Amino acid sequence: MKKSYLFTPGPTPIPSESLLAMAQPIDYHRSEDAVALIKDVLEKLKHVFQTENDVMFLTSSGTGAMDGAVSNLLSRGDKALVIRTGKFGERWGEICTAYGVEVIPIDVEWGNSVAPEIVEEHLTTNPEIKVVYSTLCETSTGALHDIQTLAQITQSTPTLLVVDAVSALGADDLQMDQWGVDVVVSCSQKGLMTPPGLAFVALNNRAWDAVEHSNLPKYYFDFRKAHKSGIEGSVPYTPAITLLNALQCALNLIYEEGINNTIKRHQQMALATRSAIKAIGLPLFASSPANTLTSIRLPMEVDGKAFVKMMREDYGITYAGGQGELSGKILRIAHLGWMNENDVIVAISSFERGLAEIGYDISLGVGVAAAQEVFSL
Amino acid sequence: MKKSYLFTPGPTPIPSESLLAMAQPIDYHRSEDAVALIKDVLEKLKHVFQTENDVMFLTSSGTGAMDGAVSNLLSRGDKALVIRTGKFGERWGEICTAYGVEVIPIDVEWGNSVAPEIVEEHLTTNPEIKVVYSTLCETSTGALHDIQTLAQITQSTPTLLVVDAVSALGADDLQMDQWGVDVVVSCSQKGLMTPPGLAFVALNNRAWDAVEHSNLPKYYFDFRKAHKSGIEGSVPYTPAITLLNALQCALNLIYEEGINNTIKRHQQMALATRSAIKAIGLPLFASSPANTLTSIRLPMEVDGKAFVKMMREDYGITYAGGQGELSGKILRIAHLGWMNENDVIVAISSFERGLAEIGYDISLGVGVAAAQEVFSL
Repeated sequence: MKKSYLFTPGPTPIPSESLLAMAQPIDYHRSEDAVALIKDVLEKLKHVFQTENDVMFLTSSGTGAMDGAVSNLLSRGDKALVIRTGKFGERWGEICTAYGVEVIPIDVEWGNSVAPEIVEEHLTTNPEIKVVYSTLCETSTGALHDIQTLAQITQSTPTLLVVDAVSALGADDLQMDQWGVDVVVSCSQKGLMTPPGLAFVALNNRAWDAVEHSNLPKYYFDFRKAHKSGIEGSVPYTPAITLLNALQCALNLIYEEGINNTIKRHQQMALATRSAIKAIGLPLFASSPANTLTSIRLPMEVDGKAFVKMMREDYGITYAGGQGELSGKILRIAHLGWMNENDVIVAISSFERGLAEIGYDISLGVGVAAAQEVFSL
Repeated sequence: MKKSYLFTPGPTPIPSESLLAMAQPIDYHRSEDAVALIKDVLEKLKHVFQTENDVMFLTSSGTGAMDGAVSNLLSRGDKALVIRTGKFGERWGEICTAYGVEVIPIDVEWGNSVAPEIVEEHLTTNPEIKVVYSTLCETSTGALHDIQTLAQITQSTPTLLVVDAVSALGADDLQMDQWGVDVVVSCSQKGLMTPPGLAFVALNNRAWDAVEHSNLPKYYFDFRKAHKSGIEGSVPYTPAITLLNALQCALNLIYEEGINNTIKRHQQMALATRSAIKAIGLPLFASSPANTLTSIRLPMEVDGKAFVKMMREDYGITYAGGQGELSGKILRIAHLGWMNENDVIVAISSFERGLAEIGYDISLGVGVAAAQEVFSL
């Protein structure tokens, strides 16, 4: 009787309330009930985004909202500062290039986070930079960026700060209004415990001003249309309504827990996981790890791809391997969304058993004990 | 004990197999199981598209695929012939304009279909037209276009024919390869009996050649990336995997029935509905009605918006009203997707009861009897 456990940084497990909501007969997206659903979801998203700005949703992957956060804010030939510390930072650069936006890259070795003073230097030297694109948690490495400090820097300039909080929203703190972040992008299948297919965006007034001056082409991802419709509980195009039903259930869970407690829960899970990995004797990959996931540099003798495959097939445990240049070299364990301390114990215990199975020298239980210690504090 | 019935031209009812598939624990989209799922779905979509060309999927509404069918095929300043016979034909024009493509419109009074010879005239006068954009069924009016004849015209020219089969795929015949249609766009929540959130596109070789010459910016909707990934059972970005699971169930139903039988079933339902409406004594709105839905011109004294509201609240029956300039003036009843003759009987019977309730002079049962006659042939 194999049970399956999903520890990937998206999709994350779905609460049973949400699964059951999706199994209900489908409704028309322009009914009064759908209007109430959309209004409720968009209102509760503000709590998660920690903002008074309107939050919009789009039917797409998170990358669709990233695409829109380029095409709605900029014009051809504009300059954008792109913080590239992994696959998703690189994606910001790829999108800018696709739209004819000039990319000024800050390349940081994967696993590290950008030093805010480097961003400050760039903005001083290059005041014509229109937007800084960053990730909150770089999902490919598990590294966290100091968005609060980056926002302090951009706030005193005309440059906007756009943050990809795709994986970290609801897991790592991001105080959009308090910190002064101009645009936040996220999606459904990570901290929001909902299947993939919905993306979310919030813009502050500075960002909406930029939208008015942007001349890049956009249609499906036109933020003005999504925004205008959303306020009325409507949509420009047929939305993924079953996912909205699931999202409502998930948002109710976060709303009841309170976003600060949600973030604290993730912090505890992250601390416990990191403590366990250290006790096992393996190095963490990210220098400033996020609450979202833990990246582990695997020993040279371990074939990361084969390990991920074995864990899925023999143990029913799905971890994520490395992406791009990290393929086979790191293991990523998410502690994200609809999870608690017992999920961390299962993730660590299984990791230990897997390492033992491939002959790696490990005392079973050392990682689990270290995690238990953190949860017992 | 109110039961709900959905007769809107999207979303359409979801088979219970699909609902239950979505209620299963979610899986990782890069697992071997997901690869097999994606490959299976894309293979079976070819049967529905009646093509040997590869079919791609995107996580978006149908409009996202329409957006891509402009940005991937054309360059700035190119000319496109846009057949505007309703809201969705107009949408093709809006997307072209957003991308700086010059729109040459053919405007036809809503409810009518374009005369193919007008398209032919335009292509003769304006041989530099790169693409003709049409709908198969114009969902806002229920009118069907003669795509077979349009494709005969475009095939002998360098101009591509792009067809929005968003609502009609699987209901009205569309033989992509046999007729020589260059691009077909569709989505999940209509004939494919799956919740909204997935869009589909197929291109033939002529269309792929055009993609190579297009210089419009695109990232999320880049067809080349979706195509390349799809062949390997992969995706460039996290897909709506729960919807893919549901789609697989729905495609199995169509595959077992056979696409020709699926279309015949829709044809019977459409004939029965039209026969019923005539027996009730009301005019059909579309001059060449599609199998997808039936549009009825409501009597002047009937407030269409209030009627739709009453039917939903008092009878649990959701019809669609008119859109844009037709708001309040027409009623749209879909016979689409997971439906059979009994759904048509319920739709007609309820319509009769609703008309009687608002004091319209009707002999209850005349429409139902006419529909029964068609099904008994």
